[in-house]
Amino acid sequence: MKAFVFSAALLLTLSGLPAAAQTNAPGVTAHPSPYNFPGIQYPRIEADSRVTFHFNATNAQKVQVSIANVPFDMVKGDDGAWTYTSAPQAPGYHNYWMVVDGAVVLDPGTQAFIGYSHMCNGFEVPEPGVDFYNIKDVPHGNVLIKNYFSKTANAWRHIFVYTPPGYDADTSTRYPVLYLQHGGGEDERVWIEMGRANVILDNLLAEGKVKPMIGVMETSAVGGGARGAGRGAGFGMGGQGGGPYGRLMTNDLIPWVDGNFRTLADKDHRAMAGLSMGGMQTAAITMVNLDKFSYIGLFSGGTAAGFGTGGRGSPIPFTAPTNTPASLNLQTIYSGAMANPADFNAKVKVFFFSTGTEPPLENPEGLKKHQEQLIAAGITNSHLYISPGTSHEWQTWRRSLYQFAPLLFQN
Amino acid sequence: MKAFVFSAALLLTLSGLPAAAQTNAPGVTAHPSPYNFPGIQYPRIEADSRVTFHFNATNAQKVQVSIANVPFDMVKGDDGAWTYTSAPQAPGYHNYWMVVDGAVVLDPGTQAFIGYSHMCNGFEVPEPGVDFYNIKDVPHGNVLIKNYFSKTANAWRHIFVYTPPGYDADTSTRYPVLYLQHGGGEDERVWIEMGRANVILDNLLAEGKVKPMIGVMETSAVGGGARGAGRGAGFGMGGQGGGPYGRLMTNDLIPWVDGNFRTLADKDHRAMAGLSMGGMQTAAITMVNLDKFSYIGLFSGGTAAGFGTGGRGSPIPFTAPTNTPASLNLQTIYSGAMANPADFNAKVKVFFFSTGTEPPLENPEGLKKHQEQLIAAGITNSHLYISPGTSHEWQTWRRSLYQFAPLLFQN
Repeated sequence: MKAFVFSAALLLTLSGLPAAAQTNAPGVTAHPSPYNFPGIQYPRIEADSRVTFHFNATNAQKVQVSIANVPFDMVKGDDGAWTYTSAPQAPGYHNYWMVVDGAVVLDPGTQAFIGYSHMCNGFEVPEPGVDFYNIKDVPHGNVLIKNYFSKTANAWRHIFVYTPPGYDADTSTRYPVLYLQHGGGEDERVWIEMGRANVILDNLLAEGKVKPMIGVMETSAVGGGARGAGRGAGFGMGGQGGGPYGRLMTNDLIPWVDGNFRTLADKDHRAMAGLSMGGMQTAAITMVNLDKFSYIGLFSGGTAAGFGTGGRGSPIPFTAPTNTPASLNLQTIYSGAMANPADFNAKVKVFFFSTGTEPPLENPEGLKKHQEQLIAAGITNSHLYISPGTSHEWQTWRRSLYQFAPLLFQN
Repeated sequence: MKAFVFSAALLLTLSGLPAAAQTNAPGVTAHPSPYNFPGIQYPRIEADSRVTFHFNATNAQKVQVSIANVPFDMVKGDDGAWTYTSAPQAPGYHNYWMVVDGAVVLDPGTQAFIGYSHMCNGFEVPEPGVDFYNIKDVPHGNVLIKNYFSKTANAWRHIFVYTPPGYDADTSTRYPVLYLQHGGGEDERVWIEMGRANVILDNLLAEGKVKPMIGVMETSAVGGGARGAGRGAGFGMGGQGGGPYGRLMTNDLIPWVDGNFRTLADKDHRAMAGLSMGGMQTAAITMVNLDKFSYIGLFSGGTAAGFGTGGRGSPIPFTAPTNTPASLNLQTIYSGAMANPADFNAKVKVFFFSTGTEPPLENPEGLKKHQEQLIAAGITNSHLYISPGTSHEWQTWRRSLYQFAPLLFQN
């Protein structure tokens, strides 16, 4: 029966839509990762959240498994298969890949996901008793794959649009919009495939905790640069309108969404949130477009303490993630949007930022100080969420969305 | 400018939605495959449709590139990179992967696609002057990612649903439905990602060549068996209702689609088509459910001459693809659905089958004889399409859909 449950879960992972890796709280028994193809036992999630990898490379001299970009040596067995069992992993989604005799490669036996500017394999560690990102028998919104033509990019753009349950039936209702941004080396797929944004919003709506809203996921790469290569360069977070992607959003994407979906097309009903580099972009774009956005979410990025406040060339000073923020200069930070705190408080209904607790890329103490400084300076609309036990990975951002979404469009 | 065009094309491939690999007919210049990440030069499609591969595996002893499951040795250069230039490739999409020191692996630098029961890399060879599967500035339907619960499988099922342009705006109109089935070792993603079914239907509709229709793409794996492992086994094409997947379709999928979309929910407005194993399944399922389907499309599979007419355990005799069909016994073939030709002709409006011309898996002469036999036996509704120069690959099936769809729902 166990095997059947997990092969059923696999069906939900196809094209990356999240698996409902249902677990029986509080105990978790060893099982194949839900992204494995049926019959594929490895990666195997052990009962204690260690993960066992197994890879056939009969003639290889050296094989490593890289988990979230940290390589670990595997050991060759008598049967020619290489194995490795990791330390216990935090709950949620983790990228991994293989390194075979110097070549970075993927295991073909599990699903592939975008990350680190290339395709990756993924595994999922369940969190006992936590199911806010699992598919449930509640009304489900639609996830639409759409293409629209951007004059700014001079190209067709491939995006995902989430419409809430009831959108199709109740054709006179208009809805607010949340723009959800990916991180560096990622693209528009990730908030659905690993973030499970649609599932999280469906579940929150069924509990009455959020307003029904439309979600839009686009790619921030505008020109021909390497995808996600830049933490600044190529994504041009500084400059007019929040940089090239900011200009694409305001000139092309937002007008297209407002023209093709039943949106409430004003600043009171528009939010943007992003993770890591996407948080930096969210800050860079929203802060110079406060006539268009009233809700701002910066997940593990985009604050003076959390993975930088902007990219190269940005008017916002870049701060290394583990730094304690210097005293804020409200005249210059966030493109000067906070120079008049009362004005910022009036324009922005929710200024949300979040972080995990685990080094090296998360900085909860710095974010606490950042919020203290904002409060001392007269900023009254900040919200800080700290995700316990998680790092610069997807569980932090699933939880951040789960915390952020209920704050949106409530008045 | 060329580089920009192809990075723009990449944006369309995310989550596998097809790239508009626009070419300037009649000439094609060398270019990176549109599924490569930006800045990745290889696979490079040469002007003469050869394909050059390049792979970094510094310490490997042997590296091969497997193109559509046929391995070719690569040669190591002084810089440690392995290279290979193929023979000219047919137009369209082709799966490939790498074999590094005995390990089947994927290149992380290009998009990944499902095929051969595991993830694959892919490349795309343009066909000069042919653009029926490229995104154009015409009205686009929606591709929806949906999850529904199947009691037959006791699992959430992840499916794609295409709704035609105008579906959202014209909320009183009801539409016919085409069920599109993947092949062995594939799943519900492929008709969108490699087949570009949505793009083909959008383009045909814009030309006035098809009726607007809904498209539904599900996975035929029902139980815990290896995905696509069976050409019969595990997919149980024989037996009651066309096998387990046939029962899932008629008990769960079709009622759910009819309950959740504005369909014309009768046999006159329902079609099914599939490729290879999906053609075999289409035959197995439709022929015992002629009260539910009036249009049948068998692409490279499911006929007495084209890759078998059924799986193991099927009442339809399995025939190797290159065999010339024996004389047909209309009492037994296709579950006996043709035992009374007049009855079959009355029930089935279009019985379409197709094949490429290239060995070893395509059998155009056999299909011609199959049609002759059907005609001689009194079957009047058959349509044969032969795709010139293509093999048991996607270009055959894109063209087959392009030929089949205009025959649907015309009266």
